Amino acid sequence: MSELYLGIDMGGTLIKMAVVDGKAAIVEEISIATDMKAAPKAVIKNMADVLKNFKNYNKIKSIGIGIAGDVDYKKGVVRFSPNLPEWKNVQLKKEMEKLTKKTVFVDNDANTAAIGAFWLDIKTKADNVICVTLGTGVGGGIIINKKLFRGNSGTAGEIGHTTIEAEGRKCNCKNRGCAETYIGVKHIVKEAVDTLKNKKSKYIMKLAENNIKNITPKLLSQAALKGDVVAQQIWNNAGKKLGILLANLINIFNPDNIVLCGGISNAGNLIMNPAKKEIKERAFKTSAAACKIIVSKYTGRLGVAGAAMLVKN
Amino acid sequence: MSELYLGIDMGGTLIKMAVVDGKAAIVEEISIATDMKAAPKAVIKNMADVLKNFKNYNKIKSIGIGIAGDVDYKKGVVRFSPNLPEWKNVQLKKEMEKLTKKTVFVDNDANTAAIGAFWLDIKTKADNVICVTLGTGVGGGIIINKKLFRGNSGTAGEIGHTTIEAEGRKCNCKNRGCAETYIGVKHIVKEAVDTLKNKKSKYIMKLAENNIKNITPKLLSQAALKGDVVAQQIWNNAGKKLGILLANLINIFNPDNIVLCGGISNAGNLIMNPAKKEIKERAFKTSAAACKIIVSKYTGRLGVAGAAMLVKN
Repeated sequence: MSELYLGIDMGGTLIKMAVVDGKAAIVEEISIATDMKAAPKAVIKNMADVLKNFKNYNKIKSIGIGIAGDVDYKKGVVRFSPNLPEWKNVQLKKEMEKLTKKTVFVDNDANTAAIGAFWLDIKTKADNVICVTLGTGVGGGIIINKKLFRGNSGTAGEIGHTTIEAEGRKCNCKNRGCAETYIGVKHIVKEAVDTLKNKKSKYIMKLAENNIKNITPKLLSQAALKGDVVAQQIWNNAGKKLGILLANLINIFNPDNIVLCGGISNAGNLIMNPAKKEIKERAFKTSAAACKIIVSKYTGRLGVAGAAMLVKN
Repeated sequence: MSELYLGIDMGGTLIKMAVVDGKAAIVEEISIATDMKAAPKAVIKNMADVLKNFKNYNKIKSIGIGIAGDVDYKKGVVRFSPNLPEWKNVQLKKEMEKLTKKTVFVDNDANTAAIGAFWLDIKTKADNVICVTLGTGVGGGIIINKKLFRGNSGTAGEIGHTTIEAEGRKCNCKNRGCAETYIGVKHIVKEAVDTLKNKKSKYIMKLAENNIKNITPKLLSQAALKGDVVAQQIWNNAGKKLGILLANLINIFNPDNIVLCGGISNAGNLIMNPAKKEIKERAFKTSAAACKIIVSKYTGRLGVAGAAMLVKN
């Protein structure tokens, strides 16, 4: 075990830390709760202290950190993070390097997820891979010629905010008809809540214990698998829109692989079957045939593993 | 003048041939009419003969050829070309190499246009450039890290066939709501013809000498510039849709530049002003600010210059 790398995935709930080997497989891992209200410096100090508990800590030369939001990856500055309201223009790289004496890389969590998928799901055996993160937000990471593609100012891959319906639903980003407004978590849940105003569902409200606030994508999957027609329709609609987004990516990138990850990808065939049908109707045949679409088997670990491998990008 | 390259752009009307220098500037050029009905071998023989008229012919080591359609760039085979119905699975590279004893490269004309724009409009001073071809078809060429990006099976860049309106207009590619169905030449003309059924235009029919078959994008530009409200509305609608496509490309690629070329780009501000307004409303601010959008100054020459520079890709 000659090569070892350290990764940190700073989520809104958990901060995951791991030592991975030269193939991004996890060797050691520790998770701590995210203290959203703490001052950034205190959070960084705490992370640096916890890292020292890794048995292999001394063998590691560099640390990679993934975090949601607007990140200046060149300077390692977190300009803004939606999960951590206190974090504004935080010199994460500089502070962490001071405390650990190791080289630190910082990037957006959609980018670290893409790198993680490239190592863990693809095993680096493809050149061009698009990673689609289906969570609260819909994001993307682009691997071109085996390297992360960041664009001119580091914000490439905002595929969730591409218009698939010119005058469609309003999005938080101020655009209309973004893919995210059809396949992001809260929009899927909202569609369920809205549908239930007019249609009766056999299982959704039962599983939600009669409280619409309990409706989650996971619950909608459970209901659909029990045969609930309303829940199936919700997944069918979301899958159709996901298929449009994926067909667009196939026609633009003609990629070797698309890897789906994030909570919504757990819906599996419920969302993938209608998506694949849509791709068949919309994408160029040769490009669609050349692209293998997979659901990541490592969803919870892509961020931390990819962060560790940032050093190779 | 140490470096010289030879390019051929095989269009449906003209075959353009040129010798360019190391910066892709044209040194010598010859155009011949395209004989659509001739056998491919005869066309290739004729091109090889004409090339020999270039003064610098003997100094040239390689030839690049761009052609519309489905091209296997690795083998230099033209599988199919919409402009040349006789051309099916033609071994263009092999035949041309036999006749000229020079190395021959063959690629799709959207790709050669992108390479041409990268050399002539951008002067290779940017890393990531998207070239958008606005003609009968709407195509794209992607330059990543100063190199053409072709994808897995050579069909990357089909941006005209990305859905921007989920249940929109039917497209020839069998998809619905493709960008091309709103900003491709025949769709713009059709929208004008359809609009004239209900609305009276001051200049369109006058300029068309009362024959709807004479309506072209150029005529619609002339009418709009004279103040024709119907023509202005047509360009406004097309510009809005172009803006959606460009905003999507900005959010996906965060490119340094987008270069527009092809006949429709001649509409200039008529289409660009509404497009820019739409980009402002739809694209991420940092990405939009980082991306300079230009209309190519070399539209008619991008294909031939880019074909010549294929050797560098």
